[in-house]
Amino acid sequence: MSRPKRTTRPKKPLRDVRAVILAGGRGTRFWPLGRADKPKQFLQIAGRATMIEETVRRIRPLVPLRKVTTVADAVQTRRVRKLFPALPAANMIVEPVARNTGPALALATARIWLDNPEAVVVALPADHLIKDEKRFLRKLGSAVEMSARAGAMVIFGIPPTYPATGYGYIRFERERPRTCGREAFYPVRAFKEKPSVELADEFLAAGDCAWNSGMFVWTAETFARQAEACAPALFSFWKKAVEALRSGNRGRLRAAFEGAPALSIDYALMEKAQGVLVAEGDFGWSDIGAWSSLLEVWPRDRDGNAARGELAALDSRGCLVWNPGRLTALVGVRNLIVVDTKDALLVCDADLDQKVKVLVEALSRERGRKKLV
Amino acid sequence: MSRPKRTTRPKKPLRDVRAVILAGGRGTRFWPLGRADKPKQFLQIAGRATMIEETVRRIRPLVPLRKVTTVADAVQTRRVRKLFPALPAANMIVEPVARNTGPALALATARIWLDNPEAVVVALPADHLIKDEKRFLRKLGSAVEMSARAGAMVIFGIPPTYPATGYGYIRFERERPRTCGREAFYPVRAFKEKPSVELADEFLAAGDCAWNSGMFVWTAETFARQAEACAPALFSFWKKAVEALRSGNRGRLRAAFEGAPALSIDYALMEKAQGVLVAEGDFGWSDIGAWSSLLEVWPRDRDGNAARGELAALDSRGCLVWNPGRLTALVGVRNLIVVDTKDALLVCDADLDQKVKVLVEALSRERGRKKLV
Repeated sequence: MSRPKRTTRPKKPLRDVRAVILAGGRGTRFWPLGRADKPKQFLQIAGRATMIEETVRRIRPLVPLRKVTTVADAVQTRRVRKLFPALPAANMIVEPVARNTGPALALATARIWLDNPEAVVVALPADHLIKDEKRFLRKLGSAVEMSARAGAMVIFGIPPTYPATGYGYIRFERERPRTCGREAFYPVRAFKEKPSVELADEFLAAGDCAWNSGMFVWTAETFARQAEACAPALFSFWKKAVEALRSGNRGRLRAAFEGAPALSIDYALMEKAQGVLVAEGDFGWSDIGAWSSLLEVWPRDRDGNAARGELAALDSRGCLVWNPGRLTALVGVRNLIVVDTKDALLVCDADLDQKVKVLVEALSRERGRKKLV
Repeated sequence: MSRPKRTTRPKKPLRDVRAVILAGGRGTRFWPLGRADKPKQFLQIAGRATMIEETVRRIRPLVPLRKVTTVADAVQTRRVRKLFPALPAANMIVEPVARNTGPALALATARIWLDNPEAVVVALPADHLIKDEKRFLRKLGSAVEMSARAGAMVIFGIPPTYPATGYGYIRFERERPRTCGREAFYPVRAFKEKPSVELADEFLAAGDCAWNSGMFVWTAETFARQAEACAPALFSFWKKAVEALRSGNRGRLRAAFEGAPALSIDYALMEKAQGVLVAEGDFGWSDIGAWSSLLEVWPRDRDGNAARGELAALDSRGCLVWNPGRLTALVGVRNLIVVDTKDALLVCDADLDQKVKVLVEALSRERGRKKLV
């Protein structure tokens, strides 16, 4: 007796979910492991693989690889190709010139829009860490659904834990939640990029603020509609991009991209768009802003030291060591970042690791040292 | 017209000066640059060459290479042979077993005695630094002369600069100097190895104390006479050594050495000998006891950092870096020792560098890490 074949019907409509991974970020904060041509997303510093691989792996239950699009410059796209040999070449968008995230996301969304205007785009930085992946996926699924149903753009807002001055804040209307399944979404009231510490304190006290995670959800159609209604400069680029993509003319695409406003997606669109919703990103998010962030991520020994590579510590506490394949010995030191690579060694106070950037800028101005950046 | 040949006559008798270089010391304080089989004297940490090469070079105006004898174990003697290809093989004494400096110096002196009992022996550790070499040579020459004329053993005593508890002290009779040329020599009153800090304070206040530098001058004959008169155990070894050397029987020499008392020359002879004189070693001496000693030796930048290898320092002070051929970047750190080698990296508080020894001892007890020691 043969089993009867079952035909299953989805209870809710199957969404065409696409991911756009912003893989083009540059950064010098993880020097000397990270270099100008090898920024954070290509480093294996949090998780079992590079951050971009982790980003793609994490969303796989919702977005298969063939529905992933990456945006980066030519050099970084080469790295992407190496890391994801199964990723279709057409899915790797090469930015002709750097124009910040606004044009990059508009172009990627335009390509998806040409394919399916109903497709839901999940836009994600390639270099963020998420500890509670199950929760993240559930929330992301809800955001996809909410975005599709309401025709709204959704931003993941991170519950702030301290009055950070380096992040963008989103104020939202906590008293007017909209729900989708178990998740609540809140209308955005205002954006505030990098506030003063006094203002950040106020935001935290008010309890109606979140950090802008840079993770967004929108349908391609909604993106186009909002750009048309609220962001003329971006929409002008959008139209040119759509034309260029339709014609397959690379020169036109490049010209359009070069003429696009170099603005972040926040400035270019999100701050102007109507009906934007905030989803609470309470899933152990970190943008791993500098070496010391990893002290919260890597397992630590009983003295609070965390190391990649062998560690022998004597009277030493709170240190982070990157020195795989070799022994690092610490004697009587506290709160240090130690990063050893083939051609450069960094020893840095963990509280001052933001200054690594300053150091690297200085190196890049020095003749014989440029090659080390 | 041909120049008339001039026959010169020495004003003072030409002494047959021999140097015995104690090249066998072990030590772990310069780990990870120094290793168990490559102690301080074979490191190029102070001066243009290794410390033992500097030691031999420094005395060359007084002692030609052919009059240099080294004493070390077989492994270290191989290193000596490599560094001094012109040193006659017979001048390299291999200690059959480790028996401290007493037997080592007795054996070396016995060999010289067999050659010429009148020869003046200058016994020097291989791993000391002397900044004022001209002054040192002048004083060494006077000590040679004094020792030969008076038939006395001479010790170089270092004017103490702080109440060190890790050195041996010599109290001497400052009020009864004996002079030789421009130099004064003082009769020894007593030895005191590693005093308490209170006692060291007293010594400094009394003004009649010096650190025992471990640098000695004696004629071979005086050594034999003093050993016979005051140090029966050592003299017993001396006699056996002389017999074994005369017979050329290696087995007998080894047996004699194995039976020798494992004592420093201070305990074995100097503390017991009669008429020992102290010469003031005010020539910028340092035994370079640990990494931080080099902060007083290496040139420092305006922030007090000293480095071998390229350094890029930001808000960092008083650090010592060994990392030749690579760039070391310091950010916001103070008073650190940073030593990078092929397979191990040390980051250590400069005030705690005595603990490197403790760390290395721990490593040497760990299975997989022994090879790093």
